[in-house]
Formats: sequence, structure tokens, C-alpha cells
Amino acid sequence: MKKFFIYLVLAASINACTTKDNAHLNKAEDVEAKDQMALSSWSDSTRQLIEAWVKDVTDTSSPNFIPVPDRIAVFDNDGTLWPEQPVPNQLIFAIANLKALAPTHPEFQKDQVLKGILDGDLSPMKKAGEIGFLKLLAASHTNQTEDAFNLAVRNWADTARDAKFHKLYKEVIYLPMVELLNYLRANEFKTFIVSGGGVDFMRVWTEEAYGIPPYQVIGSYAAVKYDVVDGKPVITKTAGSPYVDDKAGKPQAIHQFIGKVPVFCGGNSDGDQAMMQYTSGSKYKSMCVILHHTDATREYEYDLKTLSGHLETALVEAKEKNWLVVDMKKDFKRIFSFD
Amino acid sequence: MKKFFIYLVLAASINACTTKDNAHLNKAEDVEAKDQMALSSWSDSTRQLIEAWVKDVTDTSSPNFIPVPDRIAVFDNDGTLWPEQPVPNQLIFAIANLKALAPTHPEFQKDQVLKGILDGDLSPMKKAGEIGFLKLLAASHTNQTEDAFNLAVRNWADTARDAKFHKLYKEVIYLPMVELLNYLRANEFKTFIVSGGGVDFMRVWTEEAYGIPPYQVIGSYAAVKYDVVDGKPVITKTAGSPYVDDKAGKPQAIHQFIGKVPVFCGGNSDGDQAMMQYTSGSKYKSMCVILHHTDATREYEYDLKTLSGHLETALVEAKEKNWLVVDMKKDFKRIFSFD
Repeated sequence: MKKFFIYLVLAASINACTTKDNAHLNKAEDVEAKDQMALSSWSDSTRQLIEAWVKDVTDTSSPNFIPVPDRIAVFDNDGTLWPEQPVPNQLIFAIANLKALAPTHPEFQKDQVLKGILDGDLSPMKKAGEIGFLKLLAASHTNQTEDAFNLAVRNWADTARDAKFHKLYKEVIYLPMVELLNYLRANEFKTFIVSGGGVDFMRVWTEEAYGIPPYQVIGSYAAVKYDVVDGKPVITKTAGSPYVDDKAGKPQAIHQFIGKVPVFCGGNSDGDQAMMQYTSGSKYKSMCVILHHTDATREYEYDLKTLSGHLETALVEAKEKNWLVVDMKKDFKRIFSFD
Repeated sequence: MKKFFIYLVLAASINACTTKDNAHLNKAEDVEAKDQMALSSWSDSTRQLIEAWVKDVTDTSSPNFIPVPDRIAVFDNDGTLWPEQPVPNQLIFAIANLKALAPTHPEFQKDQVLKGILDGDLSPMKKAGEIGFLKLLAASHTNQTEDAFNLAVRNWADTARDAKFHKLYKEVIYLPMVELLNYLRANEFKTFIVSGGGVDFMRVWTEEAYGIPPYQVIGSYAAVKYDVVDGKPVITKTAGSPYVDDKAGKPQAIHQFIGKVPVFCGGNSDGDQAMMQYTSGSKYKSMCVILHHTDATREYEYDLKTLSGHLETALVEAKEKNWLVVDMKKDFKRIFSFD
């Protein structure tokens, strides 16, 4: 992914040189040219709305100026920065890790749900509903050290490929959203992920994929336990005190982890509605962006009839509160860097 | 405090100009001169140890080089960045806020412990032990919105003065430690607070006092609740699911909030021992610093016989693991900026 970012920067530089005569650019124009380049995969109308807001709130002479320490931007992950169809990617990892752990965990074979998954049959898990899913999550994500888990995610992120796009999952990320993250950071915003996904799962690859360091990633989690084993400190992941970072859990986690009200929020489902409300309640002029998945060809088309990413009530509130709804088919010139 | 930082920078610049002839400095020497200036309140021996480690781990040609994303430095707060005697400052705030809340909380009068505190008699609280303290904490810190609580802390931080030093509490902070925070940040470390103190209490003033933003402050906390009241989003502090960020709770919280193993740790008590062990377990060459409070005249002298800041087993492990023990009387040329 580093190569990909280098490519982006190079492409932007080359474009800047070929489309404008640099000799005629003063510094301000140069900065503006680069800013526009940054959102080049967005439709003109959405790009202009985002740029207008950023220019307004970063202009010291504007009544809407936001001081740098308060420039907090939060983003959902599944369906906002990367796809969540046909199932969330973390589920793919969970199954892969269950299989990797199985040889040293004979007890998995004694559980109907886990045995089914290991035999390639997901129906016992689906039949068990939420309990089935939580069983898979517990077996694949807990009762192991932070080092072992990080390594498992690292191996998965470096090798596993998306079935539809035939790319590494960490490469199947929305190019316009990566541009938006870069654009906001270039304007001195701090970018955070606030996702229902597992925080330990995300943190391994978010810096490489999105430029977001682990301590700016907030997600669902459970308790960990500290011990000294044979003189060495060990953190072990447990299934205790789970926290689900979804719906009202998102603004609550923003308070707990960030301690400031965001001024920008990106999301794509009703699970993000509460953190958009919270963002809209900022004392500053805020901006919320909702991705509407409308492109069955280039990505997926869904809103109401889907397990992950149900989008309904947030669209109603978007109209009331003037949140920007992005029609991915119309508004994303490119969806992935490999398009 | 901004003035104070500006003063520091100015003083450093003036010193740099008067002690060295700038005309003879090349850029590397200039940087080195500034670095040394940055730890000017430390004894030469401790300053050199810290500088040697920083120079080693930030030198790309050193086998001990630490890449920038992994330069995580964690600091305890009470007794490490500001005093914790005769009682932790947060207790002073708790009593002040209990009094401020009392007129609208007649139920406080019905509780022996709270009524005692309001009448200026702490003995019922002391008699009740930990339960008494938790009663005060719950009454003064929970069942209020994040906005109301932040405002209460802000007012306290802007007006309340330390009884011994007659300065605002947020000014009674250890100058050598502020220099160390600045020095580490100048060398591209991210500085975090990992304290047993309440996170919501600290976050209001840590940016101003130490240059540490709210999202880099980790502390004890309890659950918060998100609601929409009259169309407005509201976060309310509750007493539910308390997390005590002390002892083993510190490395656990570092995993939960930062997601990386620190390479530098500053602390002053056995409560910091676990996070020093965790830091020492880093795959990189790490550094741990323990403040030993030895100066009864300029600050306080304590280690074994104290409620807060008990220091005993950490000193034993410090010898085994080569942690730097700072004798504040000998090693801090100045303790406070107003000394």
C-alpha cells in the first residue's frame, strides 16, 4: 500500500505539472490546485461541497473557523472505507483463524457450530443466530496473546484475497475515501475510525491502508488481561466485558476514547446515525457524509435488505439535517484504485 | 500556560544565542544545542542518559533505531507530571464540585459521608474507607452531562490554587517533565498520559498544561450514556462499569487505547510498575524513568508511608531492569517553573 500512496502522490504531482503552468502559480494557487487534486475521484458537485466546508472552517477570518485542536473527523469502516458485502471481511478472517487454531484446539470439534464451520458448513452457525456468530468470534478472537492475534491478522491481511475483486482485502478500499482522509489531514484534521468491527483486528492494517495509526482506531472490544509469564509481560485477549461500538455505542466510545465532539463524520448505515447526530450537535459548523451503495457493477447495491449496512432512518435524518448523501454510482468517478 | 510555554521557548532561544556563537553553528550543531537546552532543568547525569537513549533510538544507522510510528511514550500523571501530596488534586476538585452541586442535590444531605464533607468534616468519609471515597467520587463525577462536567473542571482549573505553592494547580507541574515531554515530541515521539486519575477530569486541562491532547490521555473511567434530549445529543456520565487504570490496569488500558507497546515510560510508584514491565518487554530498546520524591523543601518527600504514590517493589525491579531512578532533590535543578 505504500507503493499505492507513492503512486497517488506522484500522479498528483504529474497532473499538477501537466495541467497548469507552474510558472504562473503563486503559492496560494498551488495549494488550491493540490487540494482539488486530492478529491479527484469525487463528482464535481460532491467535491465542491466538501471543499467549500473545509475552506470555510479552516479560514481564520470565517465565523465558522474551527481551531486545529478541535478538527476531529470520525469514519465508520465497514461499508464506509471498505466493502461489507457479501459478508463483513472480519467474518472471513474469523473463519480463517478458526481453521488455523483448530489443530491446537480439539475442543472446537465438540461444538456443533464450530465443527460445522471447520467442515465448511455454515448452516449450524446461521441457525444459532447471534449466539452462533459470537461463538465463532470468541473462538477465533479470544484466549490468545496480543502478539499471536496480531500476527494472525497480519498474515491474513498480507495474503487473503477478496473473492469478487481478486485483490488483497487491504487493497479493496474506496479510493475517494482515501483521498478524503488525506485531504482532511492535509487541512490539519485528525482522522479516526469509529467502527463496529473489532479494534484489534483493524489496528494491524489501518495505518498501511488508510494512514490511520492504531491509537486513532476505535472499535468493538472485550477485556484483556495482563500477566507476567516466565518474566515476560503478556496481554491476553478475553471474552469478558464486551463493548459493541455501534449505534449509541459510537458516540459513547467517541467520548471515552477521543474526549472531543467530532466536526466531521463519514458513515453508510443506520449504525452510524447516532455519531452523525453527535457530530451535528457540535458547537462548530459540522459536516456529515453518508455513502449510499448504489453500484451493483463496480461494487454492491444495497440499503434495506441486507444484514450489514442497513440504511433507512439515517437517510430520513440526513434530509432534516442537511447531511451529504453520496450516491456511489453517480458520485464516485472511481471506486477502487484498480478500477 | 501558553505564556509559560512561550517563555520557555524564548528563554531557550536567548540561552542558545548567549552561550554559543550562532555563526559557528552548522545545522546539526544547532539542533544538538536546542536538544540539550530542552532538558536544562535536569542534572547532567540524568540528562545525558536520556539524551543518549533518544539519540540512539532515533539514529537510522543504529541497530536500536525505532521507526517513528512505534515511538510511543507513556507517562503517569499524579506524582509524575504534577504533585499528589498531601492528597491527589482530583480529590480537591471532587470536594469543590460536590459543594457546587449540593444546592440542586438535596439528597446529598441525607448521606452521612457527603453531609460530612459539605460541613467540612472529612472524618465520616475516612471512616468509611474506600466506600466513602467512592461515594464522593460518584456524587461529584457522575449523573451529569459531559458539557456540565467539563465546565466544572474548567472553572476549577482556572481558579483553584494549591495550598502549599499558592499557584493554580495546572501551573504546579514539574518543569523537567514538561521539558522531557517537549524533547520527546521534538524527536517524533507521541506522548500519552496513562494515569489512575479520572480521564474526564484530566482531559480538560492536559493540552494546556502538558501539550497532550484529550485523545492521548488515558485514565480511570466509567460508562457514559448517549441520548437525544429535545432533539439534542447528550452524553451523560454514569457510575456503571468502572475501570481503574492502575497497576495491571495500565498495560491493559495501553493495549485497549493505544494498541502498541510503549518504548518509553515515566512513573513514580508501584502503580506504574506493570506498565514499566510492559514497556521493558518491547521488541525495541526501551527506557523507563521513575521519579523518587526526595525533596521535602521544594516539593514533598515520600515513598513507603503514603496513601498515594507508594514506591517500593518498583525500586527493586528498577535495579534488575536498569530503569532510571531520578532523585528529585539531586536530579531536578528546578522542580517548578516558579522555583
